[in-house]
Amino acid sequence: MAQEAKLLKRAYEPARLAMKYHPLYHGKIEIAPKVPISSYDDFAVWYTPGVADPCKEIQSHPDKVFEYTNKWNSIAIITDGTRVLGLGDIGPEAGLPVMEGKSLLFKYLGGVDAFPICLGTKEPTEIMSAVRWIQPSFGGVNLEDIAQPKCFDILDTLRDELRIPVWHDDQQGTGTVVLAGLINALKVVGKKLGSASLCMVGAGAANIAIARIIIEAGVTPGNIIMVDSHGILSRNRKDLEGTYHAKWDMCLKTNREGIDGGLEQAIKGRDVLIAMAHSGPGVIPAKLLHSMENSAVVFACANPVPEIWPWEAKAEGAKIVATGRSDFPNQVNNSLGFPAIFRGTLDVRARTITDEMCIAAAKEIAKVAEEKGLNEERIIPSMRDKEVFPREAVAVGMEAQRQGIAGLQLSRTELYERAVSTISHARRSTELLMRRGLIKSMPGHIHRRKQQRNRTR
Amino acid sequence: MAQEAKLLKRAYEPARLAMKYHPLYHGKIEIAPKVPISSYDDFAVWYTPGVADPCKEIQSHPDKVFEYTNKWNSIAIITDGTRVLGLGDIGPEAGLPVMEGKSLLFKYLGGVDAFPICLGTKEPTEIMSAVRWIQPSFGGVNLEDIAQPKCFDILDTLRDELRIPVWHDDQQGTGTVVLAGLINALKVVGKKLGSASLCMVGAGAANIAIARIIIEAGVTPGNIIMVDSHGILSRNRKDLEGTYHAKWDMCLKTNREGIDGGLEQAIKGRDVLIAMAHSGPGVIPAKLLHSMENSAVVFACANPVPEIWPWEAKAEGAKIVATGRSDFPNQVNNSLGFPAIFRGTLDVRARTITDEMCIAAAKEIAKVAEEKGLNEERIIPSMRDKEVFPREAVAVGMEAQRQGIAGLQLSRTELYERAVSTISHARRSTELLMRRGLIKSMPGHIHRRKQQRNRTR
Repeated sequence: MAQEAKLLKRAYEPARLAMKYHPLYHGKIEIAPKVPISSYDDFAVWYTPGVADPCKEIQSHPDKVFEYTNKWNSIAIITDGTRVLGLGDIGPEAGLPVMEGKSLLFKYLGGVDAFPICLGTKEPTEIMSAVRWIQPSFGGVNLEDIAQPKCFDILDTLRDELRIPVWHDDQQGTGTVVLAGLINALKVVGKKLGSASLCMVGAGAANIAIARIIIEAGVTPGNIIMVDSHGILSRNRKDLEGTYHAKWDMCLKTNREGIDGGLEQAIKGRDVLIAMAHSGPGVIPAKLLHSMENSAVVFACANPVPEIWPWEAKAEGAKIVATGRSDFPNQVNNSLGFPAIFRGTLDVRARTITDEMCIAAAKEIAKVAEEKGLNEERIIPSMRDKEVFPREAVAVGMEAQRQGIAGLQLSRTELYERAVSTISHARRSTELLMRRGLIKSMPGHIHRRKQQRNRTR
Repeated sequence: MAQEAKLLKRAYEPARLAMKYHPLYHGKIEIAPKVPISSYDDFAVWYTPGVADPCKEIQSHPDKVFEYTNKWNSIAIITDGTRVLGLGDIGPEAGLPVMEGKSLLFKYLGGVDAFPICLGTKEPTEIMSAVRWIQPSFGGVNLEDIAQPKCFDILDTLRDELRIPVWHDDQQGTGTVVLAGLINALKVVGKKLGSASLCMVGAGAANIAIARIIIEAGVTPGNIIMVDSHGILSRNRKDLEGTYHAKWDMCLKTNREGIDGGLEQAIKGRDVLIAMAHSGPGVIPAKLLHSMENSAVVFACANPVPEIWPWEAKAEGAKIVATGRSDFPNQVNNSLGFPAIFRGTLDVRARTITDEMCIAAAKEIAKVAEEKGLNEERIIPSMRDKEVFPREAVAVGMEAQRQGIAGLQLSRTELYERAVSTISHARRSTELLMRRGLIKSMPGHIHRRKQQRNRTR
């Protein structure tokens, strides 16, 4: 148990560093000019009086807003702060550090300019109005950490209504990365997507969206057993009927055999376990895993501590274990999804982000890992595999064109070059500013040598 | 008239360049990381799981959002696109190039992170709701190019209600810079603020706000004659009673002598003319200026062409002429106001921006010019006098503290150092990125030598 104590300590180390460094930097993102200012006369070109002509041109040809402004690459990160990380309803101000962090990832990994908008209202109709009204400045919307069930309605309504893509990362984003891992895990254990049986622990926005996406990708819905804190989902869960559409829908689609019971009955005999519940350890008792099929695959994704420790799962027979943590093999990391999915979406000016685009992204993520050689400890790429981002963007952009929802038609090569150039601009700018001390290094940061080794380019 | 043709051509040159360069850069601003990313492990500090602790800390101590996030330096530029430049109601998308330009100026001159939010609604109540709801992400709000009269109500309501400062640049901003010019112009011609008589041409948001601010600074309200397209404002203008509060208020306050008539009667015998009407030339017939008092002062501020050409005004006896153009002496330039006023406001975390803070800013702007030596062609500093920005920020911050509306108490020296450091960070980062080609220079830009001469540092 010395190992467990060490891992628990390691799990809380980022929190200690976050508390040390957040007050030193006073924010994680800023606005920066992307045009040259060589003389004050240039302001007459970028601002009044010169700017009037580009304005008039957009007025006559509305689509030119994508060419004359940063709308093409700008998205809003929208939250009401009601379900931030595992912290629950902490409010919009307290959610801002997360949204700024998300913006950082969007830029560094996907070259996307994502601005955090934390809303001071929890009313679904007001959240939707706010997003509708701010739409003109943005090329896309990323909903984030909004409680369920309202997050489903907000997403569905805005997707229908807005002319720009709307995305809820807790739904499609998580689904994409889990699907990528699932595809490769089943390859490693020699099972098929269509015949595998799954237990899903937790029936929140994440697991419901994962179920939807893996079903569209080929998992047989009846083969899924979903279990929440009140037991297994089935037609017998009358408590869910009428009140909670998306969850009731799962009651109808999954669990073909009509199994009732709790965790124990849900896990027994399954090929795959996908837990999206809450921070462990011990959320899933280790001994239950013993009853899974041979070569069991376990996704235990809660942060900072998985629902079950990987070594416990392995001791009970699991062949492959994936978690949300970067210090174990097989990290299920949303950052592999949203930055590049938006990159591809924005680059072809797609109207929306379909599940098919997510599945295309998942397959490309899986392929990047496969090309490097799959094994039990290597089913998903890491963020260090930087090829994954532009390749995924290409897959997404091509699928949008295939579906006829893209505003621009671009070849694979054009898409790839555009993605590489946009992402590398973000990385190179940040690195230059760091090298020249305009972004100061973290005082007293201990991982110096490791950082050198892991340098991102 | 060869001169006039040349000046007209020069007036439209920025528009030609704007149409050439806007489509090449696809936007003027972007989001940039301001924390180091030395390894992918750092994301565990800036994002999940580490970020949870700063979030919890803000939840317990709401004011810490100003320390752990960029809220302290973030403002929203809000427009509905109903009165963009002199273009009228061109809509929110067509207004975006202006708002991005404004953001560029906020950053480069004031170190302020200003994000453009163009709203897809013109309803005052909806505009106010949108601003209310997005408040948690921001430390301030800059209303921009919203039509009158709704701009007055929106400003007043939001200033009352929000916990962060709300500002309408077309009102207080323009007033501040005109007041600075007026103070020095009267010094040059040896007249006093309290006894000078003024004619104000145009009774839009700008001139009404200018009147309010110069009155608070010492101009005698009864000495002002304000004239709009229907004639001189007075108690006889029953067309304005009840319908348009701010303008009717001017009817009551100004024009002590109860003069009726039009431009001719308004201008006759005045010491100062302030025109905020519409692009000329010829909006004010030159011969009317002949009837002004000796040593007349003329502000003809329309863009791109002033209401009267400076040489015409001078030929009719005007001693000092100020315009909105950078190619004549005495440019009345809003950029001398808003970036530094917000810098000072944000640095002391002021709850609002009072007219007294604007007057303090105006006096400091005037002082910077005075220290360099006043003359008829030098009553206002130019943007090149970079000292003006931090000095003005100090004046604003000190006044906010004096009025008891500052959230932080800082000394003059602390304020000055903070402003210099924040502004120079913005300039140095931009220049570094330009030098290293990460911001590309404008292809074929002709003013190379001039730009070298005017280099900003």
